Amino acid sequence: MMTASIKRIALVGTGVAAISLVAMPAMAETAPETSYIFNTLSFLLHGFLVMWMAAGFAMLEAGLVRSKNTATQCLKNIGIYSIAGIMFYIVGYNLMYIGVDGGYFGSFTTWSAGPVNVEDGYSAGSDWFFQMVFVATTASIVSGTVAERAKLWPFFLFTAILTAVIYPIQGSWSWGGGWLSELGFLDFAGSTIVHSVGGWAALAGAIVIGARKGRYGEGGHPMPGSNLPLATLGTFVLWLGWFGFNGGSQLAMGTPDDVAAIGTIYINTNLAAAAGCVVAMVLTQILYKKIDLTMALNGALAGLVSITAEPLAPTPGIAILVGAIGGIIVVFAVPMIDKLKIDDVVGAIPVHLLCGIWGTIAVVISNGDATIGHQLTGIVAVGAFVFIVSMILWTILKLTVGVRVSEEEEMLGLDKADLGMEAYPEFGAGSTSK
Amino acid sequence: MMTASIKRIALVGTGVAAISLVAMPAMAETAPETSYIFNTLSFLLHGFLVMWMAAGFAMLEAGLVRSKNTATQCLKNIGIYSIAGIMFYIVGYNLMYIGVDGGYFGSFTTWSAGPVNVEDGYSAGSDWFFQMVFVATTASIVSGTVAERAKLWPFFLFTAILTAVIYPIQGSWSWGGGWLSELGFLDFAGSTIVHSVGGWAALAGAIVIGARKGRYGEGGHPMPGSNLPLATLGTFVLWLGWFGFNGGSQLAMGTPDDVAAIGTIYINTNLAAAAGCVVAMVLTQILYKKIDLTMALNGALAGLVSITAEPLAPTPGIAILVGAIGGIIVVFAVPMIDKLKIDDVVGAIPVHLLCGIWGTIAVVISNGDATIGHQLTGIVAVGAFVFIVSMILWTILKLTVGVRVSEEEEMLGLDKADLGMEAYPEFGAGSTSK
Amino acid sequence: MMTASIKRIALVGTGVAAISLVAMPAMAETAPETSYIFNTLSFLLHGFLVMWMAAGFAMLEAGLVRSKNTATQCLKNIGIYSIAGIMFYIVGYNLMYIGVDGGYFGSFTTWSAGPVNVEDGYSAGSDWFFQMVFVATTASIVSGTVAERAKLWPFFLFTAILTAVIYPIQGSWSWGGGWLSELGFLDFAGSTIVHSVGGWAALAGAIVIGARKGRYGEGGHPMPGSNLPLATLGTFVLWLGWFGFNGGSQLAMGTPDDVAAIGTIYINTNLAAAAGCVVAMVLTQILYKKIDLTMALNGALAGLVSITAEPLAPTPGIAILVGAIGGIIVVFAVPMIDKLKIDDVVGAIPVHLLCGIWGTIAVVISNGDATIGHQLTGIVAVGAFVFIVSMILWTILKLTVGVRVSEEEEMLGLDKADLGMEAYPEFGAGSTSK
Repeated sequence: MMTASIKRIALVGTGVAAISLVAMPAMAETAPETSYIFNTLSFLLHGFLVMWMAAGFAMLEAGLVRSKNTATQCLKNIGIYSIAGIMFYIVGYNLMYIGVDGGYFGSFTTWSAGPVNVEDGYSAGSDWFFQMVFVATTASIVSGTVAERAKLWPFFLFTAILTAVIYPIQGSWSWGGGWLSELGFLDFAGSTIVHSVGGWAALAGAIVIGARKGRYGEGGHPMPGSNLPLATLGTFVLWLGWFGFNGGSQLAMGTPDDVAAIGTIYINTNLAAAAGCVVAMVLTQILYKKIDLTMALNGALAGLVSITAEPLAPTPGIAILVGAIGGIIVVFAVPMIDKLKIDDVVGAIPVHLLCGIWGTIAVVISNGDATIGHQLTGIVAVGAFVFIVSMILWTILKLTVGVRVSEEEEMLGLDKADLGMEAYPEFGAGSTSK
Repeated sequence: MMTASIKRIALVGTGVAAISLVAMPAMAETAPETSYIFNTLSFLLHGFLVMWMAAGFAMLEAGLVRSKNTATQCLKNIGIYSIAGIMFYIVGYNLMYIGVDGGYFGSFTTWSAGPVNVEDGYSAGSDWFFQMVFVATTASIVSGTVAERAKLWPFFLFTAILTAVIYPIQGSWSWGGGWLSELGFLDFAGSTIVHSVGGWAALAGAIVIGARKGRYGEGGHPMPGSNLPLATLGTFVLWLGWFGFNGGSQLAMGTPDDVAAIGTIYINTNLAAAAGCVVAMVLTQILYKKIDLTMALNGALAGLVSITAEPLAPTPGIAILVGAIGGIIVVFAVPMIDKLKIDDVVGAIPVHLLCGIWGTIAVVISNGDATIGHQLTGIVAVGAFVFIVSMILWTILKLTVGVRVSEEEEMLGLDKADLGMEAYPEFGAGSTSK
Repeated sequence: MMTASIKRIALVGTGVAAISLVAMPAMAETAPETSYIFNTLSFLLHGFLVMWMAAGFAMLEAGLVRSKNTATQCLKNIGIYSIAGIMFYIVGYNLMYIGVDGGYFGSFTTWSAGPVNVEDGYSAGSDWFFQMVFVATTASIVSGTVAERAKLWPFFLFTAILTAVIYPIQGSWSWGGGWLSELGFLDFAGSTIVHSVGGWAALAGAIVIGARKGRYGEGGHPMPGSNLPLATLGTFVLWLGWFGFNGGSQLAMGTPDDVAAIGTIYINTNLAAAAGCVVAMVLTQILYKKIDLTMALNGALAGLVSITAEPLAPTPGIAILVGAIGGIIVVFAVPMIDKLKIDDVVGAIPVHLLCGIWGTIAVVISNGDATIGHQLTGIVAVGAFVFIVSMILWTILKLTVGVRVSEEEEMLGLDKADLGMEAYPEFGAGSTSK
């Protein structure tokens, strides 16, 4: 028992040191069974933190849409998370991880766990759980961009295909042991593999679906989010969840080196987010003479995405730098994308796509095993595949079932049109029926 | 340290395998001290996730009541959690767990932890903490059903007795080692023992207290929730907390088998919830041509309750089936209960009572040790006890201190009447004083 | 694998006991490597719970300010958390912990982690992460008190100095191994070192900045919070995070004694909060004939702050007592502070400063190593240092850059004035422009 209140540091080792490491070398080793438990626990613990990110996206997006579309945005997010999990079970996981062997995709079969085997190092189920929450994240990125006008069921259909096929196929190239991993492409926790993938799918959706009525052109105007505390909450939830996202991607916790690495990852993840937030605050103050809260939130998220491709190797100072550049990217990219009349309701394209690219390139700063050529190869290959397939898919959906609600429904709001209900029936759009 | 970005799977075992399991068999075993730490950590970790469910119920209910009753609903939820913890300390735990020995209740004494003893396998305090957050869950279920008209202090009094006596007595029958456990009744994490118990107490309350004015009869109308993003947040919080609820109910994490079991439980819990949500979305689309967000949320919760009695034995496919049936039950039961003029503000009776019964029966699908007869015996015995005692208790409260606010107070809203404040003084009911 | 549904208690030890502790004494010991992993995991796990408290403060404060200042309050909170982390990296940690040696401060250098060394007992990075989230907590306390009129950038400047210099210097006296620790001052998790420090800095800010226009004097009136469910959510988040705050302050989890101690800490922390909440409910009912929700929330927080200085030694009964007295303090102190015309928007001074003092004194009830003299010495020394330096700093800021927005900006609301946006543009202040 520690007397924490006397001296809060450096006492833990004392008792431990009393056990001679020379006399009993075997004692210094963690038993394989124990490592198995730690490794499995890491997947479960960090997995539930990543699951929590689904709530973060839901709140972020619910806060950044207008109140007449808020309930629909909530529904989309819980629906996505549900669909993604089921699809990843039915086909996604095995397509991504089983029998890829340097190739382009795995097995179109349904996942199942084998018996417990200590020599595996961790339970197969815990790994499945951890990978599943990642695919859900990818899907969540899309829903924010195409909010306020995408049709519900076609959107869910896109989500199902994204999580069952598109994400797993490109994921098999790197994390599944396919050609990109053999090439030497490095993306620790998924700046490209998760975030840019979501961003490319979102960009394709925004192009095919088109901008919200009244957003651009004559009389075009900003459409501010209806509930900024919810958006703030969502950002904090995502920040918390990101410790699971990046920390769990160490994929092991059963040795001192592994758990210390997770500690380093937490620090770098946190500092990159902090730097992205501070830079966005300072820049918007300078550029607009006002701090923009949504930009500060997106700055934090930009820092998080940027550090995700390599949260372990950087020093804290480099992590701050990587996150800060992420913050700069977001502040400048948001208005640029608006000029291109790409209507990205929550800013997901700058945050997840552009900072995902930046973060993947930034791996070369701190990780000597990365080369700019291999990193760009991965970025371009994954980007081209996901963007092209998504464009085709969104276009097919547009030509068949349609991807966009009618103009009347858009004006009325998706909540009344698609759900027949209101997010805030006593206030907001509800109280005025606007 | 893992090079996660090269290949994200199946590498952990490599280093471990280098230690010969044949040459050093003792090394393959986890030391008893280590198991003690893991087991205790599981109670603490999963316990704080279950504690978080109190926030989930608070947000779910705050979002599903009208804004004039929102602050009261918040107060009820934090009050319940506080009262439940204190009562379970004073008498509940020992009544449930100490000296039951095949009987009908334990000891009417106050809990205290003994000294640390590695042979116990876990710390007594960690177990107390884990069981305490369960009793709080039961109480939270009631508050949603009787919202918007139950009197505050009588409701708290009911909560105190529920958590001190009613829940512990029925819990002693099974988890405490009483007659139901000897019979062979199986309820892994509490579909009956926690959720149905809350549901029966809620049903009794709804009957004795009666429906909200204007809900049924001539001019009766739905009273939609005032803040659906909050309800969505609450559902996500509950979903996250449920990993603790079901995973922690493995009651051990100190062996590879145990931690792998927890992984299986996470997967099944998640897939059942996902299936419940998807089924509710599809069904409401078919039945009403609109997806109902609150039904989708309750569908997810239905899946969670349904899988709770047996989250370990099912294959993922069976878990999906169990959850999906939960979703179906909720979609059909909500309007049925309304036809019976039982006014259940948040849908807690379909979700917790009916799906709790379904989940307890569903144990026989995947667990060969369960028999339909024993399961029904448990369901009926617990149900009869809790419902009858709750009816008596609510009736006594009605005849003495009263259980319902006056009609004027109900119209005015409980926030102004009981608290003298408003949840949203600048908008909602606040801005219009309706 | 446990058959949890048959008997939910006391089975874990069975298998363990089969391993003779006499025959294989070495097996009863946890390997140093394993302890290292557990200790590090405790810092990381409890650290992310404390990080989550930043979201709790954000929601609590966003809910307790008027809607015209809500977005600014959100921005302040995410800004604080970001700035605190960066400052603690650049100078705070080493100033607090490196080379204090019984003195008054450590080293004005930047933190860096060394290589992994099992003999340290835990990873240095995990410890940094855990200490960093503590300093963020201190800063969050200030923002609530000075809400609705403090200028944004001067406030951030104060935060930067508080977290880089003021907090670390006083922290070095005790947790860093300085003169107060040598004296025997005991403050397990920071009733004084974290909470009172935040409270003193807040009090100084409230005095220098002054009360909100229209709060006191002729026509002075209460300014109720605009979103009480958010404030409730924030309180639940803080309650959850506090398990990390107090539990992690055990600083070790690598032995049965340590993990059992964390269990005890969770229990006491929870019961103290519950008692504070219940007492505040009962007292406001008696005093005002209405239960005050914000008082109930602050009562729970009061209980949490009160138990923080000694959450391990008390019996559960003493923990309830300590928390209950915290609840009493808050109920009586809130109106008292109002009478002194100290405008504390969220009640942070009663909760964090007064209950922090009470909790630090209360250590003597249960911890035989504490003396009232040493405790008072710590309270007075830390209080005098932080209050005086904060007064000077706020005053310098007032005389140079100014600490308060103009009267017009205050009337308009900080959201429009400083951010050019609204938290709820479709309802609340947004819809009426009041």
